[in-house]
Amino acid sequence: MKFKTKISKTEGNKHSIRGKNLLELIEKHSFTDVIFLLLRGDIPNEKEKALLEAMLVASVENGLEAPSLFVPRVVAASGNDMHVALAAGMLAIGSKHGGAGEQAAMLLASNLSATDIVAQERIVPGFGHKIYKEEDLRARALFEKAKSLGFSPPAGGCYFKKAYEIEAKLAEKKGKKLPLNIDGAIAAVMLELRFDPRLGKAFFLIARIVAMASHVKEEMEQQNSYYRLDETEIQNEE
Amino acid sequence: MKFKTKISKTEGNKHSIRGKNLLELIEKHSFTDVIFLLLRGDIPNEKEKALLEAMLVASVENGLEAPSLFVPRVVAASGNDMHVALAAGMLAIGSKHGGAGEQAAMLLASNLSATDIVAQERIVPGFGHKIYKEEDLRARALFEKAKSLGFSPPAGGCYFKKAYEIEAKLAEKKGKKLPLNIDGAIAAVMLELRFDPRLGKAFFLIARIVAMASHVKEEMEQQNSYYRLDETEIQNEE
Amino acid sequence: MKFKTKISKTEGNKHSIRGKNLLELIEKHSFTDVIFLLLRGDIPNEKEKALLEAMLVASVENGLEAPSLFVPRVVAASGNDMHVALAAGMLAIGSKHGGAGEQAAMLLASNLSATDIVAQERIVPGFGHKIYKEEDLRARALFEKAKSLGFSPPAGGCYFKKAYEIEAKLAEKKGKKLPLNIDGAIAAVMLELRFDPRLGKAFFLIARIVAMASHVKEEMEQQNSYYRLDETEIQNEE
Amino acid sequence: MKFKTKISKTEGNKHSIRGKNLLELIEKHSFTDVIFLLLRGDIPNEKEKALLEAMLVASVENGLEAPSLFVPRVVAASGNDMHVALAAGMLAIGSKHGGAGEQAAMLLASNLSATDIVAQERIVPGFGHKIYKEEDLRARALFEKAKSLGFSPPAGGCYFKKAYEIEAKLAEKKGKKLPLNIDGAIAAVMLELRFDPRLGKAFFLIARIVAMASHVKEEMEQQNSYYRLDETEIQNEE
Repeated sequence: MKFKTKISKTEGNKHSIRGKNLLELIEKHSFTDVIFLLLRGDIPNEKEKALLEAMLVASVENGLEAPSLFVPRVVAASGNDMHVALAAGMLAIGSKHGGAGEQAAMLLASNLSATDIVAQERIVPGFGHKIYKEEDLRARALFEKAKSLGFSPPAGGCYFKKAYEIEAKLAEKKGKKLPLNIDGAIAAVMLELRFDPRLGKAFFLIARIVAMASHVKEEMEQQNSYYRLDETEIQNEE
Repeated sequence: MKFKTKISKTEGNKHSIRGKNLLELIEKHSFTDVIFLLLRGDIPNEKEKALLEAMLVASVENGLEAPSLFVPRVVAASGNDMHVALAAGMLAIGSKHGGAGEQAAMLLASNLSATDIVAQERIVPGFGHKIYKEEDLRARALFEKAKSLGFSPPAGGCYFKKAYEIEAKLAEKKGKKLPLNIDGAIAAVMLELRFDPRLGKAFFLIARIVAMASHVKEEMEQQNSYYRLDETEIQNEE
Repeated sequence: MKFKTKISKTEGNKHSIRGKNLLELIEKHSFTDVIFLLLRGDIPNEKEKALLEAMLVASVENGLEAPSLFVPRVVAASGNDMHVALAAGMLAIGSKHGGAGEQAAMLLASNLSATDIVAQERIVPGFGHKIYKEEDLRARALFEKAKSLGFSPPAGGCYFKKAYEIEAKLAEKKGKKLPLNIDGAIAAVMLELRFDPRLGKAFFLIARIVAMASHVKEEMEQQNSYYRLDETEIQNEE
Repeated sequence: MKFKTKISKTEGNKHSIRGKNLLELIEKHSFTDVIFLLLRGDIPNEKEKALLEAMLVASVENGLEAPSLFVPRVVAASGNDMHVALAAGMLAIGSKHGGAGEQAAMLLASNLSATDIVAQERIVPGFGHKIYKEEDLRARALFEKAKSLGFSPPAGGCYFKKAYEIEAKLAEKKGKKLPLNIDGAIAAVMLELRFDPRLGKAFFLIARIVAMASHVKEEMEQQNSYYRLDETEIQNEE
């Protein structure tokens, strides 16, 4: 079997990505531009860039208690290099952690109405959070950002609209609030920006890797011995 | 042993990173700002942001022939999810591939002069490339970008200056050009931006993960069977 | 959430696995005994041990063309340590490579007859092989081993019997042979030995890790530079 | 660059490992035989087999508090498949955990005397343990096993002899016992069996993967949600 790609091409000294010369990209384009180029296929406008950046910022770090951050620290403390610890962090997410974005995006992108979705699904991905019982403020902040950038009806915003309808229907059905969470909000943003729903985990990790690197560096500087599960505890330092 | 961190803190509903409220970061700051905040500790100015973005763009993709890109495709084709393929891509770099940035940064940051470095090291990391024999144009583009942004003497640029001195001394010593490569240029940029040299592999991966995700998505869409080594070949599609 | 385990327990200086003192296990039991103890819950008889060993030998190595063997070599050549290369090898298997054992075991263990299975499944996992078109001799050798150890009717052997019935029905349906392959034979052996079908990938990797280690060691001794996809080829040395 | 291997060869339907037909290996040889064949290059005698088995049993499981066992459970709980969790377990060892075997073997194999080693090294790998302050009974059991199998002077046993000399000198120097631990004992066994010292981590993982699989299976059966670091605790179930 052959590897086949339409993403990039090298001809002699010249490398191009989606038909654009890499040197020109370095000279004239932002990292965010290239994220769109690689993952959507074209260069975004300013509003799209700003919304994607907000989504990445919202995903980057939410405390080292998450597996995606404590696992890399554990692996670094066992005596491993940065890239190995980052790999372990990637493995620490999955269908039950960090993976709800994709599932939520599939539902939001489907033809099902909010009512249908709540009736049909026992657990609706992208809603509810272990810690944030009433509201995931990161999700709210993303929504506000989207609105302020013009991703609101009639120009856009239909995925956030549907998401908040689901939140309302869920509260009715369950008798308690299961707020739109960061995964659900990422799902809405991805769809507003016309990304493929299946990129949910990829976007989470494109952001989260930065915090992983920060935590791994801190871990290395502390020169700790390896972690045994029966001896761990978290301590905030001022 | 306890986990100890100064990076972030959660108090009730409020999460802060390096003392800054996450919600404020979402509202007012770019992803690049947060990369600096997490990895350098403070918010950058506009010139610093622009230079970091150029460095990330320069690292993002250089053809699927690199282990960091074909390994994730192989892993995806075996029937694995996005985050698993990305983890495998992280593992595909190491001290001999994608790791020269850190080593180059250590040398550039040291008290050794260019002459000393060339005299002392049998192989100088950050110089020479399997494909680019005369000049790694990505490295040159980064240098030009830095210069155009004002990272040039006397305001800055001393790490690029030292790097090109090494290139010149190396050519004398070896009798052939071993051009400053992308790893060496990343090293110079990291130092100009006052990042810790040991973040070399982290920065490479923060950029490269975007191309990994793009290649993994393409691989999944092709619904290939798994790769056997004796059946592989590369084919560019228009 | 708490970690809960029934597998092992440490009390002071004494560690036990499934209620058996570790020191006694070291003194009196083979590695294969402990594999059964950990994965089935009890100590096997001699025939069971012999059959499991044959299954592990059959899975261990079938040429470095498989992703589970060339990926670890690629990762080692990039400049990584043994355990990192082994991890990458684990990631190189998945639902489409090395994963058919579990799926085959589920079918063999189900109430469905061979006729039902062939009628119902478009592709029957555990049958057919890219290379072995007529017969996967490793599968046949496992069957012969099982028979010679007494895993044959009426004392046992019902899973192999069902597997060969499927092979026959498949040949009728497809008009060409899709032989029972190593994954299918592993499935049959696992079931004869009363292991949980979901351990298919685990058993494959318990065997395969030995060959991975052998290949990674050889790779390290060759002190190769990293692999680029456009430069690879296989060469057998005498 | 080409992949070059002397380990195995496929010619038509016939696959051989180190010159031995795979089918014959399945028929006539144990898994342990094949471990020697792949990692030492030849078939062992009965005493060698028994000692290697004891070493593998001694390494297999020592409580889920070790990173190599709790990390796979964390990764499985996040919603990942067996092979992904096993990969994460591989990454959880490193130079500071599970890696001392290689370092100890290097020292034991060197020309340095026990006195030299203790004088020269600030920390001697393979000695001392977080939990076992007076004696690592697993190490002692391995020593007894080796002795009972005839690996004792003058026929063998010189690496254990040297190891216990180091233990004695260390106690003198430090004023407290730093007992030969499991890593040090594995080092001695590896050398008695004429394995390459650099296989230390490989052997640890060849054993440990079985316990990882057992723990991951138990984790999956518990159908837990993902682990947050602030909510973890260990609970033994009877």
